[in-house]
Amino acid sequence: MQQERTVRLQYGSRVEAVYVLGTHLWTDVYSAAPAEAQTFSLKHSERVRVEVVRDGQAEEVATNGKQRWLLSPSTTLRVTMSQASTEASSDKVTVNYYEEEGSMPIDQAGLFLTAIEISLDVDADRDGVVEKNNPRKASWTWGPEGQGAILLVNCDRDTPWLSKEDLKDEKVYSKEDLKDMSQMVLRTKGPEQLPAGYEIVLYISMTDSDKVGVFYVENPFFGQRYIHILGRQKLYHVVKYTGGTAELLFFVEGLRFPDEGFPGLVSIHVSLLEYMAEGIPLTPIFTDSVVFRIAPWIMTPNILPPLSVFVCCMKDNYLFLKEVKNLVEKTNCELKVCFQYVNRGDRWIQDEVEFGYIEAPHKGFPVVLDSPRDGYLKDFPMKQLLGPDFGYVTREPLYEHVTSLDSFGNLEVSPPVTVNGKTYPLGRILIGSSFPLSGGRRMTKVVRDFLQAQQVQAPVELYSDWLTVGHVDEFMTFVPIPGTKQFRMLMASTSACYKLFREKQREGHGEAIMFKGWHLQSAYSQKPAFLRLVDTYVHHFPPYPKAVFLIVAGGLGGMSSKRITINKILSSESLVQENQYFQRCLDWNRDILKKELGLTEQDIIDLPALFKMDEKRQARAYFPNMTP
Amino acid sequence: MQQERTVRLQYGSRVEAVYVLGTHLWTDVYSAAPAEAQTFSLKHSERVRVEVVRDGQAEEVATNGKQRWLLSPSTTLRVTMSQASTEASSDKVTVNYYEEEGSMPIDQAGLFLTAIEISLDVDADRDGVVEKNNPRKASWTWGPEGQGAILLVNCDRDTPWLSKEDLKDEKVYSKEDLKDMSQMVLRTKGPEQLPAGYEIVLYISMTDSDKVGVFYVENPFFGQRYIHILGRQKLYHVVKYTGGTAELLFFVEGLRFPDEGFPGLVSIHVSLLEYMAEGIPLTPIFTDSVVFRIAPWIMTPNILPPLSVFVCCMKDNYLFLKEVKNLVEKTNCELKVCFQYVNRGDRWIQDEVEFGYIEAPHKGFPVVLDSPRDGYLKDFPMKQLLGPDFGYVTREPLYEHVTSLDSFGNLEVSPPVTVNGKTYPLGRILIGSSFPLSGGRRMTKVVRDFLQAQQVQAPVELYSDWLTVGHVDEFMTFVPIPGTKQFRMLMASTSACYKLFREKQREGHGEAIMFKGWHLQSAYSQKPAFLRLVDTYVHHFPPYPKAVFLIVAGGLGGMSSKRITINKILSSESLVQENQYFQRCLDWNRDILKKELGLTEQDIIDLPALFKMDEKRQARAYFPNMTP
Repeated sequence: MQQERTVRLQYGSRVEAVYVLGTHLWTDVYSAAPAEAQTFSLKHSERVRVEVVRDGQAEEVATNGKQRWLLSPSTTLRVTMSQASTEASSDKVTVNYYEEEGSMPIDQAGLFLTAIEISLDVDADRDGVVEKNNPRKASWTWGPEGQGAILLVNCDRDTPWLSKEDLKDEKVYSKEDLKDMSQMVLRTKGPEQLPAGYEIVLYISMTDSDKVGVFYVENPFFGQRYIHILGRQKLYHVVKYTGGTAELLFFVEGLRFPDEGFPGLVSIHVSLLEYMAEGIPLTPIFTDSVVFRIAPWIMTPNILPPLSVFVCCMKDNYLFLKEVKNLVEKTNCELKVCFQYVNRGDRWIQDEVEFGYIEAPHKGFPVVLDSPRDGYLKDFPMKQLLGPDFGYVTREPLYEHVTSLDSFGNLEVSPPVTVNGKTYPLGRILIGSSFPLSGGRRMTKVVRDFLQAQQVQAPVELYSDWLTVGHVDEFMTFVPIPGTKQFRMLMASTSACYKLFREKQREGHGEAIMFKGWHLQSAYSQKPAFLRLVDTYVHHFPPYPKAVFLIVAGGLGGMSSKRITINKILSSESLVQENQYFQRCLDWNRDILKKELGLTEQDIIDLPALFKMDEKRQARAYFPNMTP
Repeated sequence: MQQERTVRLQYGSRVEAVYVLGTHLWTDVYSAAPAEAQTFSLKHSERVRVEVVRDGQAEEVATNGKQRWLLSPSTTLRVTMSQASTEASSDKVTVNYYEEEGSMPIDQAGLFLTAIEISLDVDADRDGVVEKNNPRKASWTWGPEGQGAILLVNCDRDTPWLSKEDLKDEKVYSKEDLKDMSQMVLRTKGPEQLPAGYEIVLYISMTDSDKVGVFYVENPFFGQRYIHILGRQKLYHVVKYTGGTAELLFFVEGLRFPDEGFPGLVSIHVSLLEYMAEGIPLTPIFTDSVVFRIAPWIMTPNILPPLSVFVCCMKDNYLFLKEVKNLVEKTNCELKVCFQYVNRGDRWIQDEVEFGYIEAPHKGFPVVLDSPRDGYLKDFPMKQLLGPDFGYVTREPLYEHVTSLDSFGNLEVSPPVTVNGKTYPLGRILIGSSFPLSGGRRMTKVVRDFLQAQQVQAPVELYSDWLTVGHVDEFMTFVPIPGTKQFRMLMASTSACYKLFREKQREGHGEAIMFKGWHLQSAYSQKPAFLRLVDTYVHHFPPYPKAVFLIVAGGLGGMSSKRITINKILSSESLVQENQYFQRCLDWNRDILKKELGLTEQDIIDLPALFKMDEKRQARAYFPNMTP
């Protein structure tokens, strides 16, 4: 909002000015003075407040001042009003110019004022109601004490017959869709009509035009029509001034999540344009602005109780499915089976999607992040998950090659943590990468940038490229416990495994055969399913009912049935050496996690695990079926 | 720097570990314990400090401790050393394991330590000297109290026979080129040799590889060879470990200025890689990092005294050139004439280039920003200015259309200002744009982004699109004065002009003819040359001699010689109305400038000026030849 505005008086003619409440109107008496004038006096109507400002010192002027001031280039007037006019040009400031020692004015200059109120309003205090003219509506701060309006990316699909998210077109088909949008109100107060030629215009910048859309509901009582007024291809919209006290309601939707090069803030402006004469361009004389932040996509940690369990039905996993079903029936979860015609033989549902949510004071809903992995399950998120109040977002690299590290087994989030006094109330995102200088695989930049840009769950890069598959969920997860921190971190540990085996050997179980009596196992031996089982997705915040998801990778594949004993494992020198190396890789991650999540030894439980080196010197899990 | 590192003891075998001074080495006694062990005791050599940490409580262990501790997963050892080893594996920690109540150990585990010192060093305290292991070398803060090393973009050309800037290739041809670079030292201290297989590696990230280059001088006493070790296509470099106390000197150059998507910070890392066994990948066990900021390109305000005056020699400006020469001779300036074979008929040298500088503790030099304007003068900056210790940078849009607003008459900088308590010690950049919602011309995004990304002179966008040519220097400039703020802002003012003319009319000069007796004038009447004359470029900072530039647009073109009197001007109703509108445009800028530069009325001098509306309703100057 341009608070200070200069209006020039004009020599020998009447000047019309529209004054917007809350601003300062400055005018120089000097340049409109007749050449022979030396002093001036002032008259003004009652509702106008006039101050003479000389060298920074202000002095208020009485309504019908007899006082004379010396004319000087540094003497200016500051004009303010406190109420909207009921009639155009009904208020007035008159300057009388005098020759030296003259008692009769030799000339006059007049300023005719129309005072109006204009305020573009949003829910800047985040209480679900659009308050009037919040002084901080054009700025934005984070946190429970913060302020600033919030916008949801309209990434769900409220209209069943459409194939895409609601944000993809500039149409609104239902009131339900409007509910996902933030309200914005243009409040005006003033005379029946503005002076001729004045215009009120809503507008956005070119850079925001692909990030925000604004709708207006025409005739909100019978047969509503939703009109797209700002957004793609529409940078400005002339608003009809209706006079008196008016409130125009607009609906605003977000079109893009925060990302690299887009911190998430968008602005909408209203300007009052002044008319001067035919053939002279209109000039903006007042601008009011509001700022929205597009709500970030937030992941949920798996220490929260699951509400839904997703599992793939395969040709070969009938028993597994049955066991999961029994398990789920004992809880309050809902089992959601992804059938073969959707999964097309791809059981790795956890690698295809990641659940999160978006939230604003007026609304919130879950949003699935679709992985660039794109196996046979690739249509599942768009076709089965996207729907009313269930959003969809994806990031796919344009040029980069997609690797196994782009699967979302390689994307997790910690529970809330405090690190050296800094709190992460939504936890920190964990992704796996390669050693700093190894030049190995890394999650694709577009996904890393997206995660980083959400800001609220500052990602930590771990080192998972030492694994064949390379997912962080192969060696770590979190489990809920009662207590202050509410969780423990489970870490795979080869040294814990060797210790356990040596104990068992000493207890006389050296000839015990491995891989007997497992219950749940993954189809591919390189990936421990146990970590999958606790890998849940939880949406947990007050304004909408908990929606919690747990994904089971879903296998019961064939296992090598070689007869492997504890003695045999302990006697393999190469296996010992490989697992010493894998323990170093695990410890590298363990050290980073302790530092970046502020964990102590007491927060970590080392779970026995062994790995085997493949031909690329990467690790495959030796026990696929360990359960926590 | 990864301060904390876990090393696992190994059951029944000797563990070698290289310890880097300043880190903590953690080891768990538990996982290496024989199955039957219940307690342990510790022995260690004198130069090793060992603490037993139980549930967060640390207890120091005597060299030859008799004390027994209970084995437990949450009991760990913290090992530190304070001096580099003179021999590999010469220090030792031994753990003795006991059965319950046994007095003889049933097994041992040993940790053999080699302590070394590694430190990658830069001039983080900005005193021109590379100090040893500054604890804040991996972070960066602005200002006189700030810290962090600085890098220059090596954008000058020290080698005369090359056609491009020094940064364009990966070669160094002279010691002079090295002087533009920042020094970086790798300091190591330790035994003659590291344990077999260990490596020290310098590296950068892929994203920094197009922003920084590192050179090493081989054989610095006879016949030096400069070797490019990091940068484009070179992400890492293995450093030879020489033993004892060693200092390796590197030279670092910046390759890119800060810009959109690149805040200006680059990192260089050194890692120590641990060897385990044949066929097992090396693992990084220690990393040290340094951060450089690439020095921003800084503009100089024209209130500083000029040192050089650039002027174009044209077919038609012999008299003008002569007058400028006379003027320059009276000062300490140097006159630099741009001859016709270079300017090829383009006199608008001020629109083609903008002078600035870059500065680091070790060096600084002027850098010309070449405008995307590219008239016939387009080769002038690269061919005439680029040279030893005179840098060059340009930004050209890939797709956008270049407009008149991209000429650097539309790029100025204010003197140092303080705005509501916030200081801008280097002033603020001023560029002209269009009204927020007019969709008019705007300086091309790549140049705006570049200016913004330099951070230190936060740009202000003014409104210059109301002018035919559309440059901010058509209506404002700064002049030096004695006093606290050291300057006044000159603003063109049509109301000041009408006031002056009315006074002159009253004094009987109504029939005075305009446009008589001017001295310096521009060739094209739409652009007031007076603003050009005070449009100077000054480089002013302590570490290198002042280099100051003033550019004169250089014309003496034809003027309309119609007989125009003051009476005639005052009697034109349309001219009055047009200039009332132009005054509103000027006041819009004046109001912004007051706010964004923290100016008062006393800081501004309104200079009489008139404009005439063209067929596109934009303003051409009515007086091209007014001088300040």
